[in-house]
Amino acid sequence: MADADSDNVIRVLVATDNHLGYAEKDPVRGTDSFTAFEEILELAVSEDVDMILLGGDLFHDSVPSQNSMHRCIELLRRYTFGDKPVSLEVLSDQTLSFHNTINQTVNYEDPNLNISIPVFSIHGNHDDPSGFGRLSSLDLLSTSGLVNYFGRWTDLTKLEINPILLRKGETQLALYGLSHINDARLTRLFRDFKVTMNCPGTAEEEWFHLMVVHQNRADRGPKNYLPEELLPAFLHMIIWGHEHDCRIVPELNVKRDFYVTQPGSSVPTSLSEGESLKKHVGLLEIYKTKCQLKPLPLQTVRPFIFEAINLADYEEELELKEGDAATRAYSFARERVEAMIVRAMELRTGHPKQPIVPLIRLRLMFTDESYMFNTIRFGQMFEGRVANVSDVVQFKKVVKKVKSDTLALDKEAMKRAFEKMEVENTARVEELVDRYFDEVKDKNPLKLMHSKALAEMTYRLVERVDGNAAENIVKFYREKAIEHLMETLPSDENVDNELANFRTRYKHDDLLKMLDARGAQAVPLKCNALKNESNIIVKGPTAVNRGRGRGRGAAGSSTSSRAKPQLNVSVNTTRSSGRNQSILNAASRSKNKVYLISDESDSDN
Amino acid sequence: MADADSDNVIRVLVATDNHLGYAEKDPVRGTDSFTAFEEILELAVSEDVDMILLGGDLFHDSVPSQNSMHRCIELLRRYTFGDKPVSLEVLSDQTLSFHNTINQTVNYEDPNLNISIPVFSIHGNHDDPSGFGRLSSLDLLSTSGLVNYFGRWTDLTKLEINPILLRKGETQLALYGLSHINDARLTRLFRDFKVTMNCPGTAEEEWFHLMVVHQNRADRGPKNYLPEELLPAFLHMIIWGHEHDCRIVPELNVKRDFYVTQPGSSVPTSLSEGESLKKHVGLLEIYKTKCQLKPLPLQTVRPFIFEAINLADYEEELELKEGDAATRAYSFARERVEAMIVRAMELRTGHPKQPIVPLIRLRLMFTDESYMFNTIRFGQMFEGRVANVSDVVQFKKVVKKVKSDTLALDKEAMKRAFEKMEVENTARVEELVDRYFDEVKDKNPLKLMHSKALAEMTYRLVERVDGNAAENIVKFYREKAIEHLMETLPSDENVDNELANFRTRYKHDDLLKMLDARGAQAVPLKCNALKNESNIIVKGPTAVNRGRGRGRGAAGSSTSSRAKPQLNVSVNTTRSSGRNQSILNAASRSKNKVYLISDESDSDN
Repeated sequence: MADADSDNVIRVLVATDNHLGYAEKDPVRGTDSFTAFEEILELAVSEDVDMILLGGDLFHDSVPSQNSMHRCIELLRRYTFGDKPVSLEVLSDQTLSFHNTINQTVNYEDPNLNISIPVFSIHGNHDDPSGFGRLSSLDLLSTSGLVNYFGRWTDLTKLEINPILLRKGETQLALYGLSHINDARLTRLFRDFKVTMNCPGTAEEEWFHLMVVHQNRADRGPKNYLPEELLPAFLHMIIWGHEHDCRIVPELNVKRDFYVTQPGSSVPTSLSEGESLKKHVGLLEIYKTKCQLKPLPLQTVRPFIFEAINLADYEEELELKEGDAATRAYSFARERVEAMIVRAMELRTGHPKQPIVPLIRLRLMFTDESYMFNTIRFGQMFEGRVANVSDVVQFKKVVKKVKSDTLALDKEAMKRAFEKMEVENTARVEELVDRYFDEVKDKNPLKLMHSKALAEMTYRLVERVDGNAAENIVKFYREKAIEHLMETLPSDENVDNELANFRTRYKHDDLLKMLDARGAQAVPLKCNALKNESNIIVKGPTAVNRGRGRGRGAAGSSTSSRAKPQLNVSVNTTRSSGRNQSILNAASRSKNKVYLISDESDSDN
Repeated sequence: MADADSDNVIRVLVATDNHLGYAEKDPVRGTDSFTAFEEILELAVSEDVDMILLGGDLFHDSVPSQNSMHRCIELLRRYTFGDKPVSLEVLSDQTLSFHNTINQTVNYEDPNLNISIPVFSIHGNHDDPSGFGRLSSLDLLSTSGLVNYFGRWTDLTKLEINPILLRKGETQLALYGLSHINDARLTRLFRDFKVTMNCPGTAEEEWFHLMVVHQNRADRGPKNYLPEELLPAFLHMIIWGHEHDCRIVPELNVKRDFYVTQPGSSVPTSLSEGESLKKHVGLLEIYKTKCQLKPLPLQTVRPFIFEAINLADYEEELELKEGDAATRAYSFARERVEAMIVRAMELRTGHPKQPIVPLIRLRLMFTDESYMFNTIRFGQMFEGRVANVSDVVQFKKVVKKVKSDTLALDKEAMKRAFEKMEVENTARVEELVDRYFDEVKDKNPLKLMHSKALAEMTYRLVERVDGNAAENIVKFYREKAIEHLMETLPSDENVDNELANFRTRYKHDDLLKMLDARGAQAVPLKCNALKNESNIIVKGPTAVNRGRGRGRGAAGSSTSSRAKPQLNVSVNTTRSSGRNQSILNAASRSKNKVYLISDESDSDN
């Protein structure tokens, strides 16, 4: 940051999902997680940062092995202790943020410890409090004085997030942490207005609002992720942990006008495509309410090449080979893997600690099972040349999407219907349903549910903010349909017909009764509108004054200035305060994923 | 120590077997281990000691729960960190003593830590290195800078013990640690002269030689304990961990002329008689080569009353009660337990943290099974009044000692034979055997072994230092006897007769052949005599100069001066250097437990 001197810039090394101890007993990959973490700590030292901010899942296991814990302690002691003074002054009440420490302070204020780089961390789902004593492994590090563990919730019936307020010169940082919490529970807490964020009490001052979370970001099904839109607009930047794909370059959420950076894991814990992206951590520089995030590529991460191939696309090539189908596929796969090993060499960084035997994953998608061969034996030929010989090739059957018998919604059509609504600012629920049936027409008839049920569901979701409506309705239909089938006992061929009968005959009134009985807790949407356009209760002057734009415009232009080429993304947080999204719009957007069918995911975050 | 000023006295708080985490999930007793440990740390602070010395088994589990580890860290951070300067100067090469630390130094020399009371610990059998990475929980504490973990062996084929050399003013302390090692393995290492203790290299200076071990001290069977006599005579004091009975008052080993103190556990882990002894830790004050150990009673240990009753001794009392035998015993036991609860009140110390609901164990020994009642139901009536309701009463059948068919030695007779030998300084093995048969006469005839076998065994044990002789001979006889029985297949009544036949017929020559074949590794005793009268190799001037008496006589009189009444035992290490024990004597003493039959023990050390 050229326009600010170093005494006023807070420099934060941002990393997440280090998964220490992942595959620690693997003779080849056993130390990969520690090697990458050590590089991160070395970067923190060489970049002379003021703090390290971790987004959870420091450990892979909720109860790390003594080996993992020992190595972690050793590394933290080696790199984060020392004489360098820490320039971050803590302005907030620390007892609110640090429970499990001796003095309830940041470690660098402990008179008995000499800290050079404080580490701040929330917990993830892998190191969340568990077992006897309900302790996280981070509690041990916290009590040892090695980590400042924050963002821990202690009450599952409501969330109150108190930021750590830090000052360095002219820059003031409000650091909000939300340690991992079950996505469904978090969704319920948001729905029920049980999430409170306490903003700094000094309205006249400028704060950079930085939040770190560890939740599903990708839509993994109803209530199984945290929609970005649920987070409040006063934030400047979200550090998103849990997702292992590196998306370190901050992405602007236009609806909320904040940036999200997703550093991704520092060690791949699944051989998925996302994990094969180049791994980075970030150097976040904050000056007043401006910030700049510089991605720092990790040099010690083991090369990993992922390729997914649909064998159907390579039939000509396969025909040219000799032998039966499996032999031809085997030979084809061998060539591909050999090529991938060559490509992996390009990922060598020259760092002396980088392990060079690569991870290779070739996903072969097939419809014809005769192509399948023994993948274990296949991998053995790469012993010593590939780090994961036991699972180099993964077969995946290409299945034509089977429509669910109980809920035959066309996802894309639903999305388009919603999008149209947003564009046109349409307010009527019925119209949404009409649009949906317009889209799907005859190609996706509802097999089980009556269209009235869908309308009811939509109504309750959108107008009554009853997040459980879809689930209840589907469950109700499934139960009733099974009852019906048990009574009629149709032959296999006649199941479809009998379900059609069921659909026609089933009384809609029963559904309404059921929904009214179960949906008593539904909250009317207008409460939502009163509270910051999201379901978060914001306390403090920021919430009250938000119409005034909080002076963010004063710091610079409203466009992003990319000071350095490619990787150096400068994020200017100035933004327009005018937003005319309708209440329905906001609600439908934040809810419209609730009844979309979930994607399968093979990742292990 | 009135004769020395505090600048020259090293004050050591001595404790062992804290078993942190013992029964931590027990709703009543869950925090007992932590409470006692906290009291010990408080004592260290209030007694203003220079260091805390722990004798192993700090934790109960080799992989402590996160709860235990967390509490331990919290306590150590709270009580052992601070501004008080540590007065102990380390003179030895620290890299030899501290492997798993960042700087390979004592924690108080780490520039990034502010230690007020250094804790030194060996590992016990409960916290020995185990699992992936072969780490002890003490390694974690060591790497965290919380404990100075020493006395760890890294090579199982030989032991080399390097003392930590500490100086405070005029006093120099050589601290030898031997972390727990399997007793049988340790016995073998001693037998094979694989134990080396490196004494300080400055012969002209005075050292106080303090050793801490964690082994069976009580004779728990052949090769299943560490005979005190195996430790070298140049030591002044042994801190003996592992044994849970508190025998804190130093006991002089007259043969080796050193003292042994056995602090015992700070929490009972079994409801045995030994654990019901009043628990203490010790304040060891060292001035030059003199020391004084002040037992400090623990005030926060839960009251525990143990009583063992043989029902046969109370038949009159039982007869007076009503109902059947079980009902009468039940009623009798209830009265006893009620009385024990009253007695337990006397063990209340008034310390606010002492848990007052007592542990009660009534052991009922019986021969007549009709006295037995349901002990679970019995305990329930003491819910809330006794901490261990599930096992208040323990029935134990009194079994007449069944003579082993394979080895019918009379232990007491054997002991008396040995004692006589020692007194008279007898040198002939045959005489020992004669004495034995003199003692046992007809009451304990050997059923299986020929008396020649016993003589052979004794010869090999004593003269040839073949520690395996007894085992080999017994094993050999057992195998042969079983072969014989399998051939003759006697009826149940005739087994004894057939064994008598076997004994008479079996050829002694076969035994000799077998022993010569197996005993090739036996070491002639004269090597032993050359090496410090024990099987320890002592390196350094102390060993060379030991004939000169090392000036110990200069410090005071040769009698123990008990400066304070009762508990304050002053140990003066001055001793006569003249000892005329014969080689045979020393060897037989150190070996004479090898073939005594082991006692059963229900303790859980």
